[in-house]
Amino acid sequence: MGIGWRSARIMTYCVGILVKEGLVMIGDTRTNAGLDNVATFRKLHVFERPGERMVAVASAGNLAVTQAILSLIQEGFKPDPDGPIETIWTQPSMFRTAQFLGQAVREVYRVDGPSLEQNGSSFEVSLLLGGQTAGGRLRLFMIYRAGNFIEATEDTPYLQIGEHKYGKPILDRAITFNTCMEDALKIGLISMDSTMRSNLGVGMPIDFITVRRDAIKHDILYRIEAGEPYYHDLRERWSAALRKAHQNIPRPPYQG
Amino acid sequence: MGIGWRSARIMTYCVGILVKEGLVMIGDTRTNAGLDNVATFRKLHVFERPGERMVAVASAGNLAVTQAILSLIQEGFKPDPDGPIETIWTQPSMFRTAQFLGQAVREVYRVDGPSLEQNGSSFEVSLLLGGQTAGGRLRLFMIYRAGNFIEATEDTPYLQIGEHKYGKPILDRAITFNTCMEDALKIGLISMDSTMRSNLGVGMPIDFITVRRDAIKHDILYRIEAGEPYYHDLRERWSAALRKAHQNIPRPPYQG
Repeated sequence: MGIGWRSARIMTYCVGILVKEGLVMIGDTRTNAGLDNVATFRKLHVFERPGERMVAVASAGNLAVTQAILSLIQEGFKPDPDGPIETIWTQPSMFRTAQFLGQAVREVYRVDGPSLEQNGSSFEVSLLLGGQTAGGRLRLFMIYRAGNFIEATEDTPYLQIGEHKYGKPILDRAITFNTCMEDALKIGLISMDSTMRSNLGVGMPIDFITVRRDAIKHDILYRIEAGEPYYHDLRERWSAALRKAHQNIPRPPYQG
Repeated sequence: MGIGWRSARIMTYCVGILVKEGLVMIGDTRTNAGLDNVATFRKLHVFERPGERMVAVASAGNLAVTQAILSLIQEGFKPDPDGPIETIWTQPSMFRTAQFLGQAVREVYRVDGPSLEQNGSSFEVSLLLGGQTAGGRLRLFMIYRAGNFIEATEDTPYLQIGEHKYGKPILDRAITFNTCMEDALKIGLISMDSTMRSNLGVGMPIDFITVRRDAIKHDILYRIEAGEPYYHDLRERWSAALRKAHQNIPRPPYQG
């Protein structure tokens, strides 16, 4: 609220949607938004061995922190000092993967957090984790910067990280656990559009992945580039629909 | 982003819309949202002498701070230590009123700010100021916690304070300077509904005022209570329109 809220540069929006048929995860790619300093980094990361594990991680926050976490979970570290080195590939379940990501967040905080804070930066990170391992269920988690996490449920089938507010109203109203995969993707892309329209720091291209329940491999993994015809059409149609949506509501009857 | 953003309790949403025909200002009334501790305070304050001045102030932020500012501008203080005591009633123009509100924000910060910050609270306040004085134009300003301010323009005919993000997409798309007063009010109420639906801390009743350009008196000043039939119908129709709006957009054509 006030100038503090408005000047905060939140430059990521990622959303995960878990429906009966499967999982959709969408992320923008913009970092360092500014007039002459726009860079594009991947925020959606896929760890897949078809039939064994299909794990996707989306990240928001300080880029150095999120990159350190992603390196750590692939190179491996010892979550338990007396135990073996573990990686994201050695986790036996999605729940254990969520715990492991939380441990990686804490490990990066242990190394970098105090120094960041001494320099006036904050340790900002949040992650979405979605996927399925052989023998387990398709699940979707959000990991906080404290390393704790929550899970999407049938009642609340989506989770968001980053600049999440602009794109929340459409999700609240249009997504249920029974929404089909194609509609979940479409509504997720509309949510992304609402965010990009209201916050110039969130920008194209958009990466997304879809995963069908029990397939244990990705269905679609795609990058939507700026100017791509379907997405351009979606933006135009959604704008027109939103402009028109209020026209069928009667005018207020109030008088002085 | 992450847990810090989500756990922040922002419990106000106010919007001001300045169109060719006039001004609409809308505010919720909820403070201290919680399961067993919900209180209602007015956030929209009107200072009106028809024909001389019609000034409305909406406030967001720490309740003690906003109440102190509102007391100060009515009881009066010396913005210039060598000058006379001034009140909101002695300001000769809307621009001077905006400056005076900024000075009141700085005065309250001078008295209470350091102590608040020492106790781990923050000095949070932002204000909307709208209205017209005799001989001047109808204007709309937003005053920040530093006491500086911006003004609505024909290109950006609305300003928001508090929990502003959920309700911004509809304003971005549906409000122009040529929108009529009735539609501006309706769209403002939809924006309020989007916010209340996504943030339980922003709640009914809703206060609003409408002011026609050059009338120098209010047109409608009204409190919409919970359960009021028109607003209930607006919420239902808007939810239905939003749920349906995406259905005319083709499904994504993307494949693996």
